[in-house]
This record gives sequence, C-alpha cells and structure tokens, in this order.
Amino acid sequence: MAVWGERLAGVRGVLLDISGVLYDSGEGGGVPIAGSVDAVARLKRSQLKVRFCTNESQKSRGELVALLRRLGFDISQEEVTAPAPATCQILKERGLRPHLLIHDGVRSEFDQIDKSSPNCVVMADAGESFSYQNMNKAFQILMELENPVLISLGKGRYYKETSGLMLDVGAYVKALEYACGIEAEVVGKPSPEFFKSALQALGVEAHQAQ
Amino acid sequence: MAVWGERLAGVRGVLLDISGVLYDSGEGGGVPIAGSVDAVARLKRSQLKVRFCTNESQKSRGELVALLRRLGFDISQEEVTAPAPATCQILKERGLRPHLLIHDGVRSEFDQIDKSSPNCVVMADAGESFSYQNMNKAFQILMELENPVLISLGKGRYYKETSGLMLDVGAYVKALEYACGIEAEVVGKPSPEFFKSALQALGVEAHQAQ
Repeated sequence: MAVWGERLAGVRGVLLDISGVLYDSGEGGGVPIAGSVDAVARLKRSQLKVRFCTNESQKSRGELVALLRRLGFDISQEEVTAPAPATCQILKERGLRPHLLIHDGVRSEFDQIDKSSPNCVVMADAGESFSYQNMNKAFQILMELENPVLISLGKGRYYKETSGLMLDVGAYVKALEYACGIEAEVVGKPSPEFFKSALQALGVEAHQAQ
Repeated sequence: MAVWGERLAGVRGVLLDISGVLYDSGEGGGVPIAGSVDAVARLKRSQLKVRFCTNESQKSRGELVALLRRLGFDISQEEVTAPAPATCQILKERGLRPHLLIHDGVRSEFDQIDKSSPNCVVMADAGESFSYQNMNKAFQILMELENPVLISLGKGRYYKETSGLMLDVGAYVKALEYACGIEAEVVGKPSPEFFKSALQALGVEAHQAQ
C-alpha cells in the first residue's frame, strides 16, 4: 500500500477503461478480468473519484452498465463517458443529420437525432453489420455529398473477445477514408476532447488524474 | 485519321483496360461502353498489336472473356493479362500457401494452388463476400503468422456498376493493413511488374506501347 500511496500522491481521480480492462467481451456477455471487480470496489471505497471512460460502441450505456453489474461491478450509467452521447452532442451543435453505420445495440443512443436526408455518416463498431452492402451504402452516401463528413466512434484496430481477436471500427474507417479520399473525425479515445469531457464530469484537472 | 496517325507514330502495341473502358459491369453482366466494340475491332484490323490488361478479380479470365464475347467484343483468353494468374505464379515461386478472401467467380484460377496450412492471405475484389466474418477470418490468420504476408489483386478505391459506385478491393486492403500493422503487396495495376508482363506478352517495349 505504501507503493500505491507514493504513486497516487497528488492524484484526485481515476479514469478506468472498460473493455479489455474490466472485462473481456464474448459469448454470453463476457467475463470479468481477474481482480478487476475487487479493484473497482476498493477504488470506490478510497478518497479517489472514479469514472469509466470507454470506446464501447456496440452497446448503449444502459446495456453496458447492466452487463457490468451482472458481472459484479459497482457501476452506474452516470459514471460512464462513452462516444455515442458525445457524438450526439456534436451532431446537434453542427446541424448534422447522420446515416448510421452502427450496431443495433447502440442505436437507441441516437433516438433523438434527426436522420432524414443524411449529410454525414456516423460509424461505430458495427460487428456483423459491417457487411459489404452496409459499407457500400455508407460509401455511396459520402460520395454524393459535396462536403463529405465521416464521424467515427473510436478508431481501434481490434479488440479481444473470449473467442479471439476481432476487427474493430478503425479498420473500416480506413476503408472508407481510402475509398472516398477523406479523413474521418474521431470521437472517443485517443481524442484529447474526449478525455477532457470525462475529466470535467469527474471534476478534476488532467494532472490530478491517473 | 491524320491525328491518330500522328499520335501513334512509333507505337507498335496498345494495352486496353477492360472494366470501365470496354464495358460497365452490372446486373445481367453489364453493358458495352459506346463505341468500344467498334474501337477494338478497328484496332485489331490495324497494324497494331493489341492486349487487354485488367485488374478484374471477381471473374476468372474464362468467364470474363465469355461475357465480353457475348457483349460483341473480339477477344480471346490468351489476349488477357489479369492479376489472378500473375498471383499464382508468385505463390508458386515463393512457396506461399494462401488463405483466399476472394469472389467465388475467380476461385477456379487457384485450383492448382496448395491452400493447406495457409502462410499468407490473398485478397481480391470479393464483393458481397467481404462480410465481417470473412474479413475477420483473414485478419486472424494474418495475426497468427510470424511474418504476415498479404497479397492484393489490385488496390482500386471503387468501380462503377450500372447501378452506381461500388467499393473495390483497395478499401478492404487498407482495413487489413491498418488492423495488422502491415503493408500489402499489390499484384495488378499500377504495379510496374504487371504492366511489364503484359508488354512482354505483347512483344513490345514500354516506349512502343500506348
């Protein structure tokens, strides 16, 4: 504990990743990573503020939190910073109406967003929904726009499931960037704005967080 | 014809692209591009040597030539340089056993190739076969190799069908390159080796071709 004490000197808050840190997703939801349920419980009993910061984009925050609670974690929806709500904020601010290339599990996060006559594409980790047909539809929409805007929830290369490595959204972002000759805007880690919004919700400065 | 004469001074051979030049693919096979059937016939009646150089990788040369003949073109299989046979040559020379991420239409070109215990991935324009599952399988195979080798038949961004623009293999190459942190070897245009092999078959030097 002395080592912990030294490492945490001056630290007031902790941001925790979820997928690959708290649990590995997979069949039946996934499995907690050894020691992580206890680690979260200990952090919450400490003086430190705790927030969860994830690029998870296959599930809504509600679904994700329900799964984590089933796995034994002490976590609530209000403690989670995730790219879908951050994207909705950007869409509203800039008057963007998205065509969504996303997993059905996260679709409810976009319920309040105007999706008529799309003037941008929003893509997330769509898993099996990354079919040729769905990718081509997003491609065609971008090619028809005068100023094509592509927003991606994260840009991960791959993630680990209990069954093995899985292609993440970043790979499919590169596909559309190359085909359309454009660059995507990434919402989520490693974007500094995304971390800042998590720290703001935590009420601490960057140098006070771990 | 005087203008043609001037432009062709010193030219002994002509390489013709196929898709998007002779015809646009689409439902029912496709449609010839206006004037192209006649242009091929005129070239063949001239003193010039003619060869067809394509990145078509959804069909075998046999299928492609049968389609073009149905559309009215004077063309035979021996006149076509295509990436699949060129790839088979490379696989044999380097002792590579491919996992194939390709369209069923071109699979017969690889009949004579050893595909047991793959030590590389060969990808071509797979169309609808670019499912998440098929992409992920190719990704997992590459990640398990000590020296991952990815060979791509062409790297086109997109092509035109009668129904609209379609994502080409290059987009999916970028996806696997990014996910695996590797660079693909491209067989087909714009690779200089590919053009050289077409010119060699034609029996002319680069400066004598158009």
